[in-house]
Amino acid sequence: MKNAPFKGIIAYPITPFDENESVDLPLFKTLVERLVASGSHGIAPLGSTGVLPYLTDQEKEAITEATIQQVAGRVPTLVGVSNLTTERTIHHAKFAEKAGATAVMIIPMSYWKLTDDEIVKHYDAVASKISIPIMAYNNPATGGVDMSPTLLKRLLEIPNVTMIKESTGDVQRMHLLKRELGDDVAFYNGSNPLALAAFAAGAEGWCTAAPNLIPELNLSLYDAIQNNDLASAQILFLEQLNLLRFIVAKGLPRAIQAGLTILGENAGHLRAPLQPLTKIETTELSHILETTKVVFD
Amino acid sequence: MKNAPFKGIIAYPITPFDENESVDLPLFKTLVERLVASGSHGIAPLGSTGVLPYLTDQEKEAITEATIQQVAGRVPTLVGVSNLTTERTIHHAKFAEKAGATAVMIIPMSYWKLTDDEIVKHYDAVASKISIPIMAYNNPATGGVDMSPTLLKRLLEIPNVTMIKESTGDVQRMHLLKRELGDDVAFYNGSNPLALAAFAAGAEGWCTAAPNLIPELNLSLYDAIQNNDLASAQILFLEQLNLLRFIVAKGLPRAIQAGLTILGENAGHLRAPLQPLTKIETTELSHILETTKVVFD
Amino acid sequence: MKNAPFKGIIAYPITPFDENESVDLPLFKTLVERLVASGSHGIAPLGSTGVLPYLTDQEKEAITEATIQQVAGRVPTLVGVSNLTTERTIHHAKFAEKAGATAVMIIPMSYWKLTDDEIVKHYDAVASKISIPIMAYNNPATGGVDMSPTLLKRLLEIPNVTMIKESTGDVQRMHLLKRELGDDVAFYNGSNPLALAAFAAGAEGWCTAAPNLIPELNLSLYDAIQNNDLASAQILFLEQLNLLRFIVAKGLPRAIQAGLTILGENAGHLRAPLQPLTKIETTELSHILETTKVVFD
Amino acid sequence: MKNAPFKGIIAYPITPFDENESVDLPLFKTLVERLVASGSHGIAPLGSTGVLPYLTDQEKEAITEATIQQVAGRVPTLVGVSNLTTERTIHHAKFAEKAGATAVMIIPMSYWKLTDDEIVKHYDAVASKISIPIMAYNNPATGGVDMSPTLLKRLLEIPNVTMIKESTGDVQRMHLLKRELGDDVAFYNGSNPLALAAFAAGAEGWCTAAPNLIPELNLSLYDAIQNNDLASAQILFLEQLNLLRFIVAKGLPRAIQAGLTILGENAGHLRAPLQPLTKIETTELSHILETTKVVFD
Repeated sequence: MKNAPFKGIIAYPITPFDENESVDLPLFKTLVERLVASGSHGIAPLGSTGVLPYLTDQEKEAITEATIQQVAGRVPTLVGVSNLTTERTIHHAKFAEKAGATAVMIIPMSYWKLTDDEIVKHYDAVASKISIPIMAYNNPATGGVDMSPTLLKRLLEIPNVTMIKESTGDVQRMHLLKRELGDDVAFYNGSNPLALAAFAAGAEGWCTAAPNLIPELNLSLYDAIQNNDLASAQILFLEQLNLLRFIVAKGLPRAIQAGLTILGENAGHLRAPLQPLTKIETTELSHILETTKVVFD
Repeated sequence: MKNAPFKGIIAYPITPFDENESVDLPLFKTLVERLVASGSHGIAPLGSTGVLPYLTDQEKEAITEATIQQVAGRVPTLVGVSNLTTERTIHHAKFAEKAGATAVMIIPMSYWKLTDDEIVKHYDAVASKISIPIMAYNNPATGGVDMSPTLLKRLLEIPNVTMIKESTGDVQRMHLLKRELGDDVAFYNGSNPLALAAFAAGAEGWCTAAPNLIPELNLSLYDAIQNNDLASAQILFLEQLNLLRFIVAKGLPRAIQAGLTILGENAGHLRAPLQPLTKIETTELSHILETTKVVFD
Repeated sequence: MKNAPFKGIIAYPITPFDENESVDLPLFKTLVERLVASGSHGIAPLGSTGVLPYLTDQEKEAITEATIQQVAGRVPTLVGVSNLTTERTIHHAKFAEKAGATAVMIIPMSYWKLTDDEIVKHYDAVASKISIPIMAYNNPATGGVDMSPTLLKRLLEIPNVTMIKESTGDVQRMHLLKRELGDDVAFYNGSNPLALAAFAAGAEGWCTAAPNLIPELNLSLYDAIQNNDLASAQILFLEQLNLLRFIVAKGLPRAIQAGLTILGENAGHLRAPLQPLTKIETTELSHILETTKVVFD
Repeated sequence: MKNAPFKGIIAYPITPFDENESVDLPLFKTLVERLVASGSHGIAPLGSTGVLPYLTDQEKEAITEATIQQVAGRVPTLVGVSNLTTERTIHHAKFAEKAGATAVMIIPMSYWKLTDDEIVKHYDAVASKISIPIMAYNNPATGGVDMSPTLLKRLLEIPNVTMIKESTGDVQRMHLLKRELGDDVAFYNGSNPLALAAFAAGAEGWCTAAPNLIPELNLSLYDAIQNNDLASAQILFLEQLNLLRFIVAKGLPRAIQAGLTILGENAGHLRAPLQPLTKIETTELSHILETTKVVFD
């Protein structure tokens, strides 16, 4: 298999802000530490959860450095470097490599729907400028473009594009990837409510913000799959399904920030236009978190 | 759990026609016998595969009787009795019960999109006229209406509506059913390419036309799930995925008829407007069947 | 231009039932007479509005004969003869021709999604058995298949397929038809809320159930278009938009039956599973009818 | 009516780059001059056509100033100031006002799907910081969020939100806006292939990149509408439909840049990942431009 340095639960920290909407780096490090300490198998800053597109170049660089310092090699790091222009994507990919990232994640962010050739050229341009592995990320809902299995296959011909993250929310797509790509290439699931189906389909890992709130359940699900114990995996998955659906429905940064607060953690503020959950939504989340935790009593 | 007399692989026979497009009853019985003999756990005539909507009332009754005679109690039978009007649905449900069917399957066929209340009233009217269990079938693609988990829950309050067949092709829907309905109600998967994900989600059985062509693989997948052996289930599923996708893409009656012919069986003719697979499609199917069989060598 | 014997407002009667859900033929004739008397330019029984798919063969034949008797040549008649099987479609098309219909309308009703070749073969088989013109009807929502402009062009190569009825609800499709087919072929709009856009795109006529309730407004809109008076057409269209949207949203047979009753007409009963509008819906419709009529004071 | 300083054809210039992918300001001014000289009724820089999201803050400011200098008050200017964060949107809106823009256009750019409350708060925050009118722009395809007529109505309660630009591509939406908002609020069409239907529905203007290539046809269509001459408008629209569909299908910046080059104009380069049209696409565009011009011979 190609160089795929991730497996299991890859945790996505939020990017917290202070009351003036400036990035709160010390708090960010605290939140990263929680994820590492709780047993996550990888840390992925500057994803959708980390509101990558809402940050300035300087803020992205500071978050990258803070992550790598805090993780300190205990688990691999996957830094998001996606940008609308090829030039800026290269810039951030090079920065991440120099800062010590294990790998970078790139979604072909698309205002104008890109052609397949434009996407290949984009990845190729970035890949030729760095040596660490690239995870190609397919998420039509946030990226605006749906990369077909055929296109993903073309991307994987680029030597350091070695991993696929799939977030179409369609388990069929994962079956096709597995069938097309065989055991040669690792694919990862980025759709929370599809976690069980994706592992059943052969996903190597699960990219998720849920470990900010329920790390034990996320890790237990992965363990059950590793033990080839589908019956337990099904029970563990159903236990966390309500929470997974809630955080996706409300938007990961808003929902995770509210959830951390409910759990007694400082989670800082959001950057506008994002606003905190409403009171009703917060009450609903509190209830879900309480009932979800019962299993551990 | 409510009375749910099916589990495992529920096989759907095609309805074969002679060269004048009349139903070929002797051939139908032969095809049913093949399905029973190959180990299928249930037989379901007059489904989509059996081109139910293309048949006259008399033909439906003849097929019902032929099935029950041929199966002769060896496995349970699930007879499709769906009709656009409530009056005709009652007629066929009563006929099936009197003929000895184990249960009937009803999809709310919909030319005019029915309201939830209309659907409940429809099921209620039929259910009150028979004593055998009813499987409520949700398939927006063929039935034209998508029954929400909330509506399905209402239907299940009718005493002899005891089973759900889900064919939206969305594994999320199955997770929701499992969460909402718990272990009280059995749900069945009707989407072939979702077979693995559905079993992982807790489906009691798989309603499928595939046993006409690859019964061993279908049964082995179910066995692996029964043995809580996800790793084997994944391999067995990937082995049959190409075939499952092909028969769905080409339409089950056309694809199964062609497949049976390739396997050397007499499969009769189709009724217009349905036409046989093209030569290119037939060649593709031959190739899929050959490669799919390799696993048994 | 090919033989296209319709233009303007083509009115669709409902099929009324008595309290035992039997077709009420005398009442049907009364409702047809209202449509002719109010100035409609054509009468189209056995459409979606006339619940064609819920009727037996005998009922369809009786409705066909009743229409032609009642209309008595005052305006052209367009009889719906669509059926899932080719054989039954031919049967009803021949019956309609012999009964004296001006033309027949055929939608490729589709339980199993038909291929383009199957659809062409279907129309060809029917067309070769009759001499009157055929209107090919495209309505993915009720027919289950979306006929592309390319496929429609193939159908128009059949000599007596001379008209297209478009109900995708997409005005783009009409522009494409106009561009592709030029002035050679007449196309008709079947999407009520698209009436203005369709006339602007060059539709020859509007197939609609609305004349059962607001014939003057429907006819005035057509007159404005005939007078090349877009400004008036826009005002007249906005005046009737609420009603058009309501009858589509609630289903034409249910909404027209309720509307007629509100207007003091006997509209009979519906056939189950269709149920009357709820009380709240009826109140809403009453309000819309009242406000819509203000323009005529 | 609220203050709506635009009507007719509002032309969108591309943002040209030099061979190093730097913005070419002198060339930009030349392209703006062409649009003004050809008779466009308004100029709208920094739209989708102007690749707003691919530009740095400095580049956006330079484009804003260059536009206002070049237009020099001959027609009104509509400057795009949309940004993912509220803070940056305010920054650019204030800059545009100070530079002399007639109005600003704001789409709620959305990586994370915003709630209605978040969107209202976003517009409110920007509106309170400027005095010039705001055009609220609804385009789910590029903005990622679909603003309902109800939400748009809420936005219009903000005093200087005075105009709506609709690009859902659904003429129904425009009818609803007209019905809901009456003559109080101006709405503009942003969907090129819907130009005729939108004018028929009462649009005040058409926001389009097409005047870069076929200004006479765009202006003639508007004139026909102004003259209440639907018959001519239909002919003029069908004449330009192929071109309108092509530029939308290929992406406006790529298609306009290619079209200008075909017409003998210097159109500069694109910024990666955007790539020039392929040779085949360019040939197709040449053919469309040639056939489209025939009408003027």
